[in-house]
Amino acid sequence: MTVSATPQWLQIVDKKRNSRDEAISRFSEAQDASSGTLHPDGPSNGTVDDATSQETSFDSIGDVLGAISAGTLTATELCTAYIKRAVAAHNQIASLTEIFFDDALRQANDLDRFYKENGRLVGPLHGVPMTLKDQFDVQGYDSTLGYVGRAFKPAKQDCVLVTLLRRMGAIIIAKSNLPQSIMWCETENPIFGLTTHPRNTDFTPGGSTGGEGTLLALQGSAVGWGTDIGGSIRIPAHMLGLYGLKPSSTRLPYQGVSVSTEGQEHVPSVIGPMSRSIDSLIDVTRAVIDIKPWDDDPKCCPLSWRDDMFTDIQTRPLVIAVMQDDGVVRLHPPVARVLDEVAQKLAQAGHEIVPWKPGMLHQECIDIMDQYYTADGGEDIKRDVAAGGEPFIPHVEALVNRGTPISVYDYWQLNKQKLAAQKRYLDLWNSTKSSASGKPIDILLCPVMPHSAVPHRKCRWVGYTKIFNFVDYPSVVLPAGEVSKELDGTAVADMAAYEPRNALDEWNWNLFDLDAMNGMPIGVQVVARRLQEEKVLGAAKVIDAILKGAGVVLQGRISSVKDGLES
Amino acid sequence: MTVSATPQWLQIVDKKRNSRDEAISRFSEAQDASSGTLHPDGPSNGTVDDATSQETSFDSIGDVLGAISAGTLTATELCTAYIKRAVAAHNQIASLTEIFFDDALRQANDLDRFYKENGRLVGPLHGVPMTLKDQFDVQGYDSTLGYVGRAFKPAKQDCVLVTLLRRMGAIIIAKSNLPQSIMWCETENPIFGLTTHPRNTDFTPGGSTGGEGTLLALQGSAVGWGTDIGGSIRIPAHMLGLYGLKPSSTRLPYQGVSVSTEGQEHVPSVIGPMSRSIDSLIDVTRAVIDIKPWDDDPKCCPLSWRDDMFTDIQTRPLVIAVMQDDGVVRLHPPVARVLDEVAQKLAQAGHEIVPWKPGMLHQECIDIMDQYYTADGGEDIKRDVAAGGEPFIPHVEALVNRGTPISVYDYWQLNKQKLAAQKRYLDLWNSTKSSASGKPIDILLCPVMPHSAVPHRKCRWVGYTKIFNFVDYPSVVLPAGEVSKELDGTAVADMAAYEPRNALDEWNWNLFDLDAMNGMPIGVQVVARRLQEEKVLGAAKVIDAILKGAGVVLQGRISSVKDGLES
Repeated sequence: MTVSATPQWLQIVDKKRNSRDEAISRFSEAQDASSGTLHPDGPSNGTVDDATSQETSFDSIGDVLGAISAGTLTATELCTAYIKRAVAAHNQIASLTEIFFDDALRQANDLDRFYKENGRLVGPLHGVPMTLKDQFDVQGYDSTLGYVGRAFKPAKQDCVLVTLLRRMGAIIIAKSNLPQSIMWCETENPIFGLTTHPRNTDFTPGGSTGGEGTLLALQGSAVGWGTDIGGSIRIPAHMLGLYGLKPSSTRLPYQGVSVSTEGQEHVPSVIGPMSRSIDSLIDVTRAVIDIKPWDDDPKCCPLSWRDDMFTDIQTRPLVIAVMQDDGVVRLHPPVARVLDEVAQKLAQAGHEIVPWKPGMLHQECIDIMDQYYTADGGEDIKRDVAAGGEPFIPHVEALVNRGTPISVYDYWQLNKQKLAAQKRYLDLWNSTKSSASGKPIDILLCPVMPHSAVPHRKCRWVGYTKIFNFVDYPSVVLPAGEVSKELDGTAVADMAAYEPRNALDEWNWNLFDLDAMNGMPIGVQVVARRLQEEKVLGAAKVIDAILKGAGVVLQGRISSVKDGLES
Repeated sequence: MTVSATPQWLQIVDKKRNSRDEAISRFSEAQDASSGTLHPDGPSNGTVDDATSQETSFDSIGDVLGAISAGTLTATELCTAYIKRAVAAHNQIASLTEIFFDDALRQANDLDRFYKENGRLVGPLHGVPMTLKDQFDVQGYDSTLGYVGRAFKPAKQDCVLVTLLRRMGAIIIAKSNLPQSIMWCETENPIFGLTTHPRNTDFTPGGSTGGEGTLLALQGSAVGWGTDIGGSIRIPAHMLGLYGLKPSSTRLPYQGVSVSTEGQEHVPSVIGPMSRSIDSLIDVTRAVIDIKPWDDDPKCCPLSWRDDMFTDIQTRPLVIAVMQDDGVVRLHPPVARVLDEVAQKLAQAGHEIVPWKPGMLHQECIDIMDQYYTADGGEDIKRDVAAGGEPFIPHVEALVNRGTPISVYDYWQLNKQKLAAQKRYLDLWNSTKSSASGKPIDILLCPVMPHSAVPHRKCRWVGYTKIFNFVDYPSVVLPAGEVSKELDGTAVADMAAYEPRNALDEWNWNLFDLDAMNGMPIGVQVVARRLQEEKVLGAAKVIDAILKGAGVVLQGRISSVKDGLES
């Protein structure tokens, strides 16, 4: 009898990857014979065969529904095209974890039959291909959270979101990669490995919703669903030139979504969509709210979509606070430049810009917030890692060893501090006013990160995103520009003179590399008060239109997947 | 130098009571000379001089506003009358803690001047006299929570509710008694003593909002504000024949309300109004929602008043589930009879009654819930009591010694159990349907307690109320009947044969005393799903009208304060 030298956790990893790869290859082999059925005339049917395929109108839910309604596209054609692109993307940057291709094509076929028999769409997301971060429970499939110990533990039922999406006609084609434990803004775990940036494999695409981000950037999904407890939707959206919504907690249904430190409800993780167009972000958010998720999720707030708020914000001059610096980590020159450009264009378009002056409030909020993540002394994450026996990734190891557990009594005191800080933040918002009308600001415009995409394992400061988890305000990220050797070259000369304020600031400053970062997307955040998703989406639509209309360089999206497609 | 034999905490108690009594007597002496200014013709100006004064139309906010608008009543007259009644009530049953009579009369005078100068009301609560449980922070006054250590620690600012109420014209005249730590359904503490039931001083008026309840029952307030973490608004409403709303958390502003175990947000305490009419309950709730409390309280849900929901529920046959037994503690015969009578009248009025079949779900929820109250091992309450040095009241002593502290990790596991149980409850609600239409129920009708008012320190089971704190559903209590020797006599003969299910059931069964309880009010709870305050208030209005219109005995209110008034 021979003893295997391979540790058990690695055997599970092998088995898990093989299972995934087998599902992918089963589809790929079948498609080699059937790819001729794809619609050849669609401006973006997303086939890997179509060498001219680019970012196209089929990125938008409205266009998908229009084409299917018009009979120029079937759900099966679209689904097949997106699966092909998802596979190509995966081959390039390792995005996929769970594969639902068979189920997806069966569902697409059902939708096509329904449409043929009834002459109408099944719902507002009929045939729209979507993907899910590997946290959303889908019956019969794993939600690993990047933990080996959760492999081969299939979910007993669908999460509420999946149930609702399918009821509205959406097709879930796969799940995607995330970091071990989720608690990091990059994307790496011992099961599925490292997900890389499509423009540069040495760079991170961000995280924790990095698998979704890369799939979307490479047109392997029309809508991606992520989660965000500190920036995990917004950071990959920023680094990849995508749109992403982090709503307030309770607005969208979390029921049935697996998460680490589950039960830690005081800095709540939220779910949210990512997309390649602002309209898709709006349409899918509205659809999920319109179907009343509170009927199925006891935590969901029964707040109907407020069309008056959504319309109002798009039809008048806005008062916009701009935060150029959180007082902790200064922005890299290209990030500062893009934010300034956006603010200038907004002012030119007739909106009022006022400064956001938080003083040390952001730092104070984050100091409170950080105590929640490890209030259990890391026990939750340690247990999950111990159950599988795999090594920690370095960031997670540092996190779980950062603090000792506190008592429940001290936890309650922390909650009191949190509420007091949230109140101060609300008061600051209310007191930040238009100098013309005296009305409080409509929205806050700010950077997403102090830098664009960086090399793997270099991210350290997520203060620009996590603050809005702490105060629980909705935030939309939209692409606003990119790093440019041409535009940012002059700023580099001045950088050496900067005296960093602290170790984090110094770390960030030293990351800047104009040559390596050239062309990397840069996003901005649009923030509104708690549960004002209609306002933040409407304002983002206004800003997106201004940025596009002004002819600004908006190549924030990854426009080519040729490396992946040719492999 | 002599050493006082009186412990320091008792010295503080003396000083605190003297301070209160001095404020009361200052008003009473002034009034002896000025009572002639009271309006003599109002049907219920509430003067203690008016021997015929009874429960009247001035219980309703609408009538107050109507009379002031018509110029037949001034805010000062009404305020003076209510203060007189509050003092009389206090002399009878020890309700008051903090006295704002001077401020209140000044504010009434300001309101009268405003009305005279502008010919309009200042807001939707112009001149309505209100009182507050001794938790609501009012600048310059204590919020003791029944703790000696919190005496002479005046609040630095008003809580959000007080700010908003005053902005709308309400006049706060006093604060009222509660149990030490709030965590009990009776009303007793070492500072202000024991508050008794107006019908029988040996009986409790319920709690923890017992001071408000007795003031309202004796017409010493038009609207009373309480808090509820397990039944604390609903229990005194039930025992005293009043209306009370426990909303879902986040609907009404808690910011600035002091509470024990503050920071324990998982079984949240909520604020809510109590009144002598359903219309007042509706009007005041609507006013506070209409003024957008979420602009000042970061936890408040920005959910506008939904008039469509409020109207819809009043204009069609309802599907009503009735819970006659929670499976733990059986109802006393009069409580069961009143509930049956209400259900019969609803059926006769054309509403559909279906049974509520929770199985053991209520018990399971409560088992989870009880672990929250003492998750800190009682540390929060022990610290507050130690700070003052006073003795524990027996119930609180038992509570804090009930459990050992758990870890934050275990606390998070408890949250997971809670959410799973809340989901099961929601699923039960959705699956409890009309046999006719197949639609889910509109509301749940159930008892408030297994008994009417009982002698002091005899309450043990609050499972009929606390379940709705756990699932966070709104509940309205309305008066529905009273214990009747005539109607309940026959049931007594059968009682001896009952085999109690458990110790709690046996305790409750042995409490029944038809002679002593005769005439005690009995309420019912109307419950809707989370954050459906409009639905539960609208349904309560429908039921209230049916109960009154059918001529049922509805003497649930305390109709006389003669003992107090003659003293």
